[in-house]
Amino acid sequence: MEIKVIHQILEWNEDHSNEIKKHLTDKGVTMINVMGSPGAGKTSLITALIARLRAEYKIGVIEGDIAGKIDAETIASLGIPVVQLNTDGACHIEAMSIEHILPDFDLDALDLIFVENIGNLVCPAEFNIGESARLAILSIPEGDDKVAKYPLMFSTTDALALNKYDMLPYFDFDPVRVESDARDANPNVAIYPVSARTGEGLDALVDWVKAQMNQD
Amino acid sequence: MEIKVIHQILEWNEDHSNEIKKHLTDKGVTMINVMGSPGAGKTSLITALIARLRAEYKIGVIEGDIAGKIDAETIASLGIPVVQLNTDGACHIEAMSIEHILPDFDLDALDLIFVENIGNLVCPAEFNIGESARLAILSIPEGDDKVAKYPLMFSTTDALALNKYDMLPYFDFDPVRVESDARDANPNVAIYPVSARTGEGLDALVDWVKAQMNQD
Repeated sequence: MEIKVIHQILEWNEDHSNEIKKHLTDKGVTMINVMGSPGAGKTSLITALIARLRAEYKIGVIEGDIAGKIDAETIASLGIPVVQLNTDGACHIEAMSIEHILPDFDLDALDLIFVENIGNLVCPAEFNIGESARLAILSIPEGDDKVAKYPLMFSTTDALALNKYDMLPYFDFDPVRVESDARDANPNVAIYPVSARTGEGLDALVDWVKAQMNQD
Repeated sequence: MEIKVIHQILEWNEDHSNEIKKHLTDKGVTMINVMGSPGAGKTSLITALIARLRAEYKIGVIEGDIAGKIDAETIASLGIPVVQLNTDGACHIEAMSIEHILPDFDLDALDLIFVENIGNLVCPAEFNIGESARLAILSIPEGDDKVAKYPLMFSTTDALALNKYDMLPYFDFDPVRVESDARDANPNVAIYPVSARTGEGLDALVDWVKAQMNQD
């Protein structure tokens, strides 16, 4: 019974996701679904990418949170259009929520939307939200066993950012293991060691974002 | 419709949780529900607590994971009875799963069970699993905004371990803010700055575990 209901929800979600993707393609807007654990550095990385992309592209952000608007305030302070999406306890964003929120943006004036999903390595991976591409963030302090332990997240992402890479000397984290596990999960994944704080590695990740835009 | 189903699941879960709690109390077994983000250090902290408690108490572990058995192998290598609970994608452990697993332990020969919940700051907080007490772990690299952003987890926990406290110099983390947010969420929460790696602060957390056992 429970499984059947969840199956229906996922099918229904997929229909909405396809509608959103078609709509955004028509408008020439690329949407990146940014996912990762609480504290992996999603907001920091989005902020760092915006700083490097905003001269060239018009950018908007959808900030997903269980509650509150801490991250949306951070983005708004940059002068970037942002909409807060509170899930009221749910551990993921669904496509229908995105559909409800998109009219809050002037899509004709945007090139790129970052969606910061709920901090969670499990549920967000199950729900397509009409994104052009997925960017998963794993931070060094989380440990090098996470790709093996959360397979759906890392098998479904298009790119993997290894964030807080400047902290590598302080943690027992084997990047070779993580890259190997990530390529086992998804041979086509693009992997970027980065530090949102120091800027290390961000140029390559910026190029990946641009490549997603050129595909539209 | 979806909300009604979820409500029924939660009520049904609560019944099972109460049954488990009664059964464990009859057997004189204390069960600690250990929760936190992926990479917060749940397995490391459980391992460090076991090292300090095993001379005095008989301990078992239930390892919750989406998939795989990495953590269960770590615990088994210590010579501690451990049962792997794979949720096959679900982001939390439910009471019924614990009920199914408890017969795998000889409860008459145990004093204490640690349950390592799924790495997640959202869903596990919604489900009582018959635990005597909850221990939430927040690690320094995750950032000091997490208590405010994941209110249910931190308002329902009995104790909060601030793990990887030895990393405080390397991260922008204000422990005063976290303690204040945590006490706002739950005035009775016990807060322990610890490092599973260095052993810092663990004696106080061990005393908290022992206090939970004396309550039974």
